[in-house]
Amino acid sequence: MEKLYIVKIGGNVIDNETDLHAFLESFAAIKGNKILIHGGGKIATRIAEGLGIEQTMVNGRRITDKQTLDIVVMTYAGLINKNIVAKLQSFSSNAIGLCGADANIILSHKRAVGEYDYGYVGDVDAVDTAMLQGLLALNLTPILSPITHDKNGVLLNTNADTIAQEIATACAAVYDVSLIYSFEKNGVLADINDERSVIQNINASSFTQLKNDGVISDGMLPKLENALKAIDLGVSKVIIGKADQLHELIQGQKGTTIGK
Amino acid sequence: MEKLYIVKIGGNVIDNETDLHAFLESFAAIKGNKILIHGGGKIATRIAEGLGIEQTMVNGRRITDKQTLDIVVMTYAGLINKNIVAKLQSFSSNAIGLCGADANIILSHKRAVGEYDYGYVGDVDAVDTAMLQGLLALNLTPILSPITHDKNGVLLNTNADTIAQEIATACAAVYDVSLIYSFEKNGVLADINDERSVIQNINASSFTQLKNDGVISDGMLPKLENALKAIDLGVSKVIIGKADQLHELIQGQKGTTIGK
Repeated sequence: MEKLYIVKIGGNVIDNETDLHAFLESFAAIKGNKILIHGGGKIATRIAEGLGIEQTMVNGRRITDKQTLDIVVMTYAGLINKNIVAKLQSFSSNAIGLCGADANIILSHKRAVGEYDYGYVGDVDAVDTAMLQGLLALNLTPILSPITHDKNGVLLNTNADTIAQEIATACAAVYDVSLIYSFEKNGVLADINDERSVIQNINASSFTQLKNDGVISDGMLPKLENALKAIDLGVSKVIIGKADQLHELIQGQKGTTIGK
Repeated sequence: MEKLYIVKIGGNVIDNETDLHAFLESFAAIKGNKILIHGGGKIATRIAEGLGIEQTMVNGRRITDKQTLDIVVMTYAGLINKNIVAKLQSFSSNAIGLCGADANIILSHKRAVGEYDYGYVGDVDAVDTAMLQGLLALNLTPILSPITHDKNGVLLNTNADTIAQEIATACAAVYDVSLIYSFEKNGVLADINDERSVIQNINASSFTQLKNDGVISDGMLPKLENALKAIDLGVSKVIIGKADQLHELIQGQKGTTIGK
């Protein structure tokens, strides 16, 4: 099977122009099939504040009401996505910026109201792998913003880590997929205050151990659960590590590798 | 040659949700290859006002400084483009929303500073026809926002009428192209106050006559110049008419037809 690199880049890198520039230059240098999924960063919050639209957070998550959805679509699928595409084009990478509604790449449904109503938030139902293959066959590099749609004309705010995992598992049927979660830390850390304490390898059983021992913290739990789910569903390798070490991550020289 | 319909939709239709919905439903019903180019409408101005960013106009044109460019990218390539795509998807049209930077579809350069500095405004240099063919061959319907790029990482605000004409002339080499400029009027009017005074046919020589007689007004001049240029460069037919009569326009039953 052909190799496919799926890279998720976090908000902290997007918020820093110098870091983003360096990251995109190294992403552009990856040879062969690749897909980038980006998060949102703080720009949406800044614009919402500027427009006087109040943001409600519940359990550290933004409630996406209609006004917030509009801002999220503008900034994620517009400002951030198109600036990433323009930068990659300047590095001779033929990037194509998409949200999940484009080419019906990611179909989702509005999350059911449970204890909380998260508003216009989507849970993924399906990825059109054949369409992604078609775009990759045109030598294009899809750049996905974390917005999906429900096929009834409604756009939905969707977790970027989850999108990366869903795309990776869907593509695992036709590609040898490596999924890279790049962010501001060196990897999964045994001691959150020590960047040298990277745990090199994690699998399902060591994850359970680390969780029970309280080594892995809140924010890292869903990321690792996504990673293990991806491995379970056929993704060859998941690597978590620092955005400015992208090539070392890909070669398995740095970061945390999640495997069987 | 296969037929290709290229439709430009103006700002007034975009600003009215009911009109836009009806237009997109009839656009989705066009069979075969089609491309939609949309303008901006008043949303960008509203958001700029909300954020307290002053807009400078010269000769009825917006000066695109860096802050204004960001807003234009957000609203045109983000909010408007993705909502159009989601709506078309709900009408079972496999739309893909793009700006000119995506897949390097439209390359431009920043307009040289002459009497005025229009800022981040692009004049088109090249259209990647082969890439558009590739996307159409995947049964996709490209939805283009009027943002282009210079291949040096800079996004540029670009006139949507001009983009429609450039795409149409580039595609005329490989498709039998009909270019439809749809807006809020019934067509080119002999009397601007009488919607029944549609001029049914215009060619280069009758255009000169109408211009000399002062029948054609300011706003219509560049539209007709774009239309005649398209015809001159191989586009089969250009039709100017009302957005809610799209199918009649395509069949030549309504609006103004520009030809040789």
